[in-house]
Amino acid sequence: MVRFFVEAGEPESGTVTLTGENAQHAKVLRLRAGERVLLCDGGGTEFLCEVTDAEGFILSVKERRESTSEPAVRVSVYMAFPKADKLEHVIQKATELGVYQIVAFPSARCVSRPEEKSLKKKLERWQKIAASAAEQSGRGRIPRVSVLSSFSEALKQASQADKALLFYENEQAMTLKMALSGGGYRSVSLLTGPEGGLEEREVVEAREAGLQVCTLGKRILRCETAPLCALSAVMYDAGEF
Amino acid sequence: MVRFFVEAGEPESGTVTLTGENAQHAKVLRLRAGERVLLCDGGGTEFLCEVTDAEGFILSVKERRESTSEPAVRVSVYMAFPKADKLEHVIQKATELGVYQIVAFPSARCVSRPEEKSLKKKLERWQKIAASAAEQSGRGRIPRVSVLSSFSEALKQASQADKALLFYENEQAMTLKMALSGGGYRSVSLLTGPEGGLEEREVVEAREAGLQVCTLGKRILRCETAPLCALSAVMYDAGEF
Repeated sequence: MVRFFVEAGEPESGTVTLTGENAQHAKVLRLRAGERVLLCDGGGTEFLCEVTDAEGFILSVKERRESTSEPAVRVSVYMAFPKADKLEHVIQKATELGVYQIVAFPSARCVSRPEEKSLKKKLERWQKIAASAAEQSGRGRIPRVSVLSSFSEALKQASQADKALLFYENEQAMTLKMALSGGGYRSVSLLTGPEGGLEEREVVEAREAGLQVCTLGKRILRCETAPLCALSAVMYDAGEF
Repeated sequence: MVRFFVEAGEPESGTVTLTGENAQHAKVLRLRAGERVLLCDGGGTEFLCEVTDAEGFILSVKERRESTSEPAVRVSVYMAFPKADKLEHVIQKATELGVYQIVAFPSARCVSRPEEKSLKKKLERWQKIAASAAEQSGRGRIPRVSVLSSFSEALKQASQADKALLFYENEQAMTLKMALSGGGYRSVSLLTGPEGGLEEREVVEAREAGLQVCTLGKRILRCETAPLCALSAVMYDAGEF
């Protein structure tokens, strides 16, 4: 079924008129009167609707329900700023894979970091990528994309999860499987470094902040591969597939 | 340590002269006499070497050993031809993630398929992408990239593995975890469809050929995301990280 994300609250009145990009999309799809579509409020609630006026893009709400495509576990990806195209790649793919939120932050060896003045525009762009990937993959929620201004802030926020994990290529003993063993976790933070890796002192700081340092295996993963590999494995471990 | 892939057999004489791209790479890295580097034969054997003549790119072999970075499980990715850039993306990422081989094949809904006459050149290019990703990720083997001429040939070859799995968005009951349960597998085939998905009759044909049909969760993954997600999960399940 075709899905559209609309503003939360909009479907509550029982009638919704698609506007802007949604209307354009509906036009391309040539929606017909009587056809059923799904509206999502982006926060996990879905509304089964029927097209009542195809030319005016008017829908009537038939049923309200919780989205069934959201994972039970909330996984947050904390990624040190990589080059721009890689961050966009991770936002798109992590959204497909069911990420809860994506948080970018600076670290010592970051070669790329958006300027303060262009940040607002970039965040809008990144949020749009997440929204588009959420729509295409059939999610009920749009993951939030945000930016923190320091590494220690990222540690502080990441450490709030039931499992707060940092991946480091020099760690060999502690596997992700060991870190997740016992199950029962409801939230997970996955923190990864930039192109040049994390500095050892940053890893020490992360341990002190309560993060567990893990390996992703004996091969060196690129900075854009590591979070997606870890996210896939956590979703698998949590019983998502 | 810096790694170079060389022809199998080359290091056996005890002295190796780097040539071509390896020599160019050594020049960029400004290797010095006395420095240690690793030669890999691309088949799982490594040779610890010392630079004896930096200007002539001459190395002397100190130690021969099995590569320690190859996974114990052999995972083959069977991917219906996607658009070209996506296949290249999967070759690079799957190599990092430890894939054994990548096999591309045609299926009913493929929108893209290389022409016969350009295939040889494309295979060379794809194999080069795999070699470069293997070098950068520290692998001891270069995964083989190959192309089959039919869907049924892909099924026949994929079904040889201990676990032969096909991922289908309309499958809901059989999870990857159920399919892998019991462990003890040494080889796995992961078969995924093109942009438009597999046709139902193809899925039926795959079942008849002995493949198990699984889900990758409630979200629809893009055709380039699915094999990498499945590969990450299998490596995790097999105890690689």
